[in-house]
Amino acid sequence: MSQFETIHTGQSQSYAGLTVAMHGHIARLKNLGQLIFLTLRDARGTIQLVAEGEEVLAVCKTLVVETPVIVTGMLRAAPESNQTEMALESIRPLTGQLEPPPVEIAKQSKIDKLSPGALFDMRPLTLRNPKVRAIFKIQAEILVALRQYLNQQGFVEIHSPKLVSTGTEGGANVFSLEYFGKTAYLAQSPQFYKQIMVGVFERVFEVGPVYRAEEHDTTRHLNEYISLDFEMGFIQSKQDLIQCQEGLLRHIFAHLSSACATELAMYQATVPEITAIPQLTLAQAREILQSQYKWQSASRDLDPEGERLICQYALKEHGSRLVYITNYPSEVRPFYAMKDSSGTGTESFDLLYNGLEITTGGQRIHRYEDLVASIQSRGMKAEEFSDYLLAFKHGMPPHGGLGIGLERLVKQLLGLASVKQAALFPRDQNRLTP
Amino acid sequence: MSQFETIHTGQSQSYAGLTVAMHGHIARLKNLGQLIFLTLRDARGTIQLVAEGEEVLAVCKTLVVETPVIVTGMLRAAPESNQTEMALESIRPLTGQLEPPPVEIAKQSKIDKLSPGALFDMRPLTLRNPKVRAIFKIQAEILVALRQYLNQQGFVEIHSPKLVSTGTEGGANVFSLEYFGKTAYLAQSPQFYKQIMVGVFERVFEVGPVYRAEEHDTTRHLNEYISLDFEMGFIQSKQDLIQCQEGLLRHIFAHLSSACATELAMYQATVPEITAIPQLTLAQAREILQSQYKWQSASRDLDPEGERLICQYALKEHGSRLVYITNYPSEVRPFYAMKDSSGTGTESFDLLYNGLEITTGGQRIHRYEDLVASIQSRGMKAEEFSDYLLAFKHGMPPHGGLGIGLERLVKQLLGLASVKQAALFPRDQNRLTP
Repeated sequence: MSQFETIHTGQSQSYAGLTVAMHGHIARLKNLGQLIFLTLRDARGTIQLVAEGEEVLAVCKTLVVETPVIVTGMLRAAPESNQTEMALESIRPLTGQLEPPPVEIAKQSKIDKLSPGALFDMRPLTLRNPKVRAIFKIQAEILVALRQYLNQQGFVEIHSPKLVSTGTEGGANVFSLEYFGKTAYLAQSPQFYKQIMVGVFERVFEVGPVYRAEEHDTTRHLNEYISLDFEMGFIQSKQDLIQCQEGLLRHIFAHLSSACATELAMYQATVPEITAIPQLTLAQAREILQSQYKWQSASRDLDPEGERLICQYALKEHGSRLVYITNYPSEVRPFYAMKDSSGTGTESFDLLYNGLEITTGGQRIHRYEDLVASIQSRGMKAEEFSDYLLAFKHGMPPHGGLGIGLERLVKQLLGLASVKQAALFPRDQNRLTP
Repeated sequence: MSQFETIHTGQSQSYAGLTVAMHGHIARLKNLGQLIFLTLRDARGTIQLVAEGEEVLAVCKTLVVETPVIVTGMLRAAPESNQTEMALESIRPLTGQLEPPPVEIAKQSKIDKLSPGALFDMRPLTLRNPKVRAIFKIQAEILVALRQYLNQQGFVEIHSPKLVSTGTEGGANVFSLEYFGKTAYLAQSPQFYKQIMVGVFERVFEVGPVYRAEEHDTTRHLNEYISLDFEMGFIQSKQDLIQCQEGLLRHIFAHLSSACATELAMYQATVPEITAIPQLTLAQAREILQSQYKWQSASRDLDPEGERLICQYALKEHGSRLVYITNYPSEVRPFYAMKDSSGTGTESFDLLYNGLEITTGGQRIHRYEDLVASIQSRGMKAEEFSDYLLAFKHGMPPHGGLGIGLERLVKQLLGLASVKQAALFPRDQNRLTP
């Protein structure tokens, strides 16, 4: 134990003139012979250390970058800068002699030049880069804000099983495994469970992994990702869900502005201002795309180019980086989607942000007989959904909800090239490590 | 929309004398002909509704329990009780005609009489019972408090993948699946990832599912459960971890006392007071058990009976419902456990609570060469752990952490018969539904 108070780098300015202890990793080393400059990186940031005395110079000469150390020294203003630096009095390595890392973690230019493969192969090291790790500080703070908001709105957090007996939406793209002689699947979403829980707690949310065995390898897909789901009962219409999400996003973005200003600045990112997000029905969106952008999609949905263009439109016409597309046709939505008044559409919506879908949601069917009919109309058997249907058979209120892809939200906020960069240890069809 | 303010049952006393709207499910119905008493259950609690007028009586006569409804009426003091009741003015069912549920959800005696199988088979309904759902309100509030405390202590929440390429501790008891032509496993713990992340954020925590393909079907095992993990760097010894956990538990229990007083009372549960939790080495514990309880275990660990008896001892001698057992021998701990000064033991601990282990933790090996040697001493190949070892090869500080089983913590707090009751939709070798 040091005799001095241990502080972190974020506190250094307020301790100027005092001798303190700090710990962290040596991020950089510059040996000028009679003088060695080091950068100490801790969980909050970095500080320059200056080694001048014979004893500390002798220790510093044996060190390589990434060595964890405890240091003591006096904090002072660095010459010709408004930074605080430490005049080293002692430095103690906390592990054995190390090899220098295969990539210069502190040098942004070196990290930026890595191929995605190398970036992810060396994830245990590349995550130590301040700009890379900032992504996950932001992700953590998004969840802090999400929980604050939803708890305050009366939502209860739940944990539903990820090992399930049926695919949520009929069975495509699911991972399967042997489970004590039966076949189990990895949950594609907490959909059925969160709906069942509306009958228990009225408003619930879940933050957890979901699994998609999709074979595409794109900048927008992960095979394991974190889904932010909420579901609320006793709603009047899908507008209640849309309003709740707008309040949620407003709260998240306000929180990030104050809690992650440094991290956002690393990406030149600014949070969008959420007022009333424009809403277009899918039919309106397709009409606009055709007339204004000569765009036509092969499917009845929007393709990635359509999503990009309609966001361009929303920014130009409404000054909004976000736009809701609503009332998707039944055929592109799951069986539990509430039908709209047209008879062929649904009370559903996607939220697009800077050109990419980040949320899917909608009002659900809550009448037992309607749900059974909807299952059967798709050629499926109601018996296969008997556990789920039990909740409806004995009374479910009008309800709905949505799921936000956490990594997609972060990708769009920071302008990352791929959603994989927003996963701590991404999983795609070619990657199961580290 | 009702013209009256919509409130929840928890607010009814403060609205006494006013006409308001409420929504929820009909939990009970008692038809006296000219008078019908109903109980409305919402997310917070229940309230009695009294139907007297002809119109409301006519509607009430068509209803069965569990129907979701919107009601309006005047709130007033119920005769001969200090409760508030509503004199019904209108009642509107929010779904179609229902069948009565197969179990009387509101009657505690009926729920208590259900076999565990029936309790879980009808989970979508039995979770609506106030005493059953209280378990999950308490669980949610434990996590609210856990995050408050750990965030405040500088921990960052992470999400590590549950699809992994190797079993954490050598490969026994793991679920495996085919992953795009490779074999993947379901993570038994976030151990390697949280350790790697100590090199990034210094202090991290994770709340997430873990998987154990164990074949025992006991009151203490689940095949999928929620693990509360933290890991902290730059520690002096395992006492830093123990202190952090004591602060954490103190905060959780204080939070529950105020946030879940009603729910705790349903189980006649009181939270333990955490001061300094007594610590016994495993050797001391075995010695005490032998001399005072004539108990001897076949293995070098404690068996369930040993855990029960040593908790009895701690309560008698130290007035504590919790006790740490420390310094387990290497052979019963994973390869990454830091050796203690004896050479054969480890800087490890379990925390027992009311007779059951709820936490496993300890200091970890942080020197690369020691970790490689420990892997090899167990007949395993260091190359198989190369991603994990990469973090250590390039500098890890002294660190350690622990994992708490959420369901076990709740079971012990509430005195539940089985850990399965503390899982929303439990998974055991015979149960993959609902």
